[in-house]
Amino acid sequence: MKWEDLAKELTQPTDSKIVLLVMDGLGGLPVNGFTELKLPINRIWTKRLERGICGVTDPVFMGITPGSGPAHLAIFGYDPLYYQLGRGILEAMGTGVEVGREDVVARGNFATLKDGIVVDRRAGRISTEENIRLCAFLNQTIQEIDGVKFSFYSGKEHRFVLKITGPGLSDALTDADPQKEGKPPVPATAVAPEAEFTAAVINKFLERLKPVLKNEPKANYALLRGFSKFPSHLPPMTEIYNFKPAAIANYPMYRGLTRLLGMDVLNVGPETEEIFSVLEKNYDRYNFFYLHFKKTDSAGEDGRYEDKIKAIEEIDRFIPRLWALQPDVLVITSDHSTPAVLKSHSWHPNPFVLVSATAAPDEVEHFTERECAKGRLGRFPSLHIMPLMLAHALKLKKYGA
Amino acid sequence: MKWEDLAKELTQPTDSKIVLLVMDGLGGLPVNGFTELKLPINRIWTKRLERGICGVTDPVFMGITPGSGPAHLAIFGYDPLYYQLGRGILEAMGTGVEVGREDVVARGNFATLKDGIVVDRRAGRISTEENIRLCAFLNQTIQEIDGVKFSFYSGKEHRFVLKITGPGLSDALTDADPQKEGKPPVPATAVAPEAEFTAAVINKFLERLKPVLKNEPKANYALLRGFSKFPSHLPPMTEIYNFKPAAIANYPMYRGLTRLLGMDVLNVGPETEEIFSVLEKNYDRYNFFYLHFKKTDSAGEDGRYEDKIKAIEEIDRFIPRLWALQPDVLVITSDHSTPAVLKSHSWHPNPFVLVSATAAPDEVEHFTERECAKGRLGRFPSLHIMPLMLAHALKLKKYGA
Repeated sequence: MKWEDLAKELTQPTDSKIVLLVMDGLGGLPVNGFTELKLPINRIWTKRLERGICGVTDPVFMGITPGSGPAHLAIFGYDPLYYQLGRGILEAMGTGVEVGREDVVARGNFATLKDGIVVDRRAGRISTEENIRLCAFLNQTIQEIDGVKFSFYSGKEHRFVLKITGPGLSDALTDADPQKEGKPPVPATAVAPEAEFTAAVINKFLERLKPVLKNEPKANYALLRGFSKFPSHLPPMTEIYNFKPAAIANYPMYRGLTRLLGMDVLNVGPETEEIFSVLEKNYDRYNFFYLHFKKTDSAGEDGRYEDKIKAIEEIDRFIPRLWALQPDVLVITSDHSTPAVLKSHSWHPNPFVLVSATAAPDEVEHFTERECAKGRLGRFPSLHIMPLMLAHALKLKKYGA
Repeated sequence: MKWEDLAKELTQPTDSKIVLLVMDGLGGLPVNGFTELKLPINRIWTKRLERGICGVTDPVFMGITPGSGPAHLAIFGYDPLYYQLGRGILEAMGTGVEVGREDVVARGNFATLKDGIVVDRRAGRISTEENIRLCAFLNQTIQEIDGVKFSFYSGKEHRFVLKITGPGLSDALTDADPQKEGKPPVPATAVAPEAEFTAAVINKFLERLKPVLKNEPKANYALLRGFSKFPSHLPPMTEIYNFKPAAIANYPMYRGLTRLLGMDVLNVGPETEEIFSVLEKNYDRYNFFYLHFKKTDSAGEDGRYEDKIKAIEEIDRFIPRLWALQPDVLVITSDHSTPAVLKSHSWHPNPFVLVSATAAPDEVEHFTERECAKGRLGRFPSLHIMPLMLAHALKLKKYGA
């Protein structure tokens, strides 16, 4: 029996509240003996978390470095090896495109076509301003084909996102991209019978592009890759967990993902303080809160070790406010590690703490990777975070008799 | 490859003996800093267990609170998410009904039928004495239908258990229960072709009930729910482990379950001492012993913290006798936790110790939840207890060359 089915059977509505703070890319590696969670900085935190149990989590399994998509799916209780998010979906979410469960999205490149041959797959890397103008023009000119709505979202330089909306769309399509220059364009091909209508619509669109863009010196055509849809077999959180969830996230990808998972996505600005004031304002309206903090990951990705420490210190100041709300379950962890020394996501496990009246506290005194690894929760898959939070919030009934 | 298949291939008969003492619901939560396993009380125990390795176990996975059925299946090496025990089976076992592998059981309610309408689903909650009289009457009056034997076992008030015995029975049936009062009775319906014979027999029985009970003022009909059979794909322990197992358990559910798993169930009275004297008397006849101690769970369920401590102390006195037998492997653990503060089963992991000449002892000095969590076995699924015990008893051959 899968966790999703078990959850549907076992979760019960209660008033208890869960607050999950994900500090993106929090886990790090030592520089001169100290990771970014170096001891001196988290005194407030540690004091407030004395009722906690600690552990470290693996987002996928040992050794696997996850992207933000799979890492978050795991935290929300969805097996990231079973539910896969397509490239197009992630690109669209990262660009801030609102993707619906039935929409198909693709990554687009403006390209140069000459005498029926793709001579430049990136249209000479046109400027982003040009791209914005072209997308606005296409949004006006090609609004709909065969009942399917077309929307264009400009990215950097030659890149854009195409979203198509309508009934009966499928993402079982090959790329409409010859992959190399000096070749003619290739149509999108359906790899499953249910995608034949979508393939036909996409290919009609590609044909219409030619006259529409014929006066453009460089960007007179487009290539489309990574057609994808949100996994249709992925049940929304609201269907399986019997709670009312809200996401407090500022970055498009996390907003897009949580919206597709069925959470209410609350508006929050870029300032760290806002995460907590939005939580406070909406505290009575929901019983599950996902708080996303991005700065730890950004600093890690850029290799800014000191800035990552500062980002952690920034959060540390707000822990008393978090604690003042007295949530029944408070979890602080990361989706994946982003050690500044690696300047990238990594496979290292995430520090994890859970604070709850039903947690028999352990003896961990400092919230660091090394200390958390000695915690009573041991090392466990991120996939078990959700059942653990629900259990401690007394939202899970007994399994079997 | 599943563990059951691996076990069949790898287990070898040896004279070595395994004693598994399951202290039901042993794991707890702290009250004033100490769980029910508080340090001062288990001195004898600790001394005797100095050759042990410790750990903590999750019956299903983190966060899941199991019933006794799934929790015991896991300890015996059966994945509790794969092998599910129906409600009827568990109710029957709990009532002390001897259920065979081919039998179908159901939970029954005596009910009141008036003008073809179920007017009281509980027959006015007749007394248990009435119930006993009715079941005795039915056992005499309706012994058999179409070659299928009918047996009735009275429970409390209006509740009874029906067991039907015969070849070709299936439990793929819907409830014969309109669920609400003011509706006519509903027949059992086969949800798979192989259950059509069983459905027909059950419905003939329900028709026969009407004339048979027509003079009863309240209990003139019956509703049947939760038709279930022991999972037919579950292989008995004797088929996969190559050992001779005995269960020393006093409570019906544990006796019923272990009998269905193929163990010899020895008679034992309610006194704690008897567990150990029955073990001693039968020590030469078997090489695997499951000892079940219920008082820890009962006290936990009732919230009797001090009584749970006393129950543990009671067992503590007999540890020297257990140890005097010099079993090759001795394991003491629980099926699930039952913290007195929660008055219910919980998801917290079980303390676990294994004593054996091949166990490199760890530094755990006290058998408590917190100390066990620091043991060398770490945190692991209960499903691995059986392979671990077999290994330390040298009953498992090498896997692969």
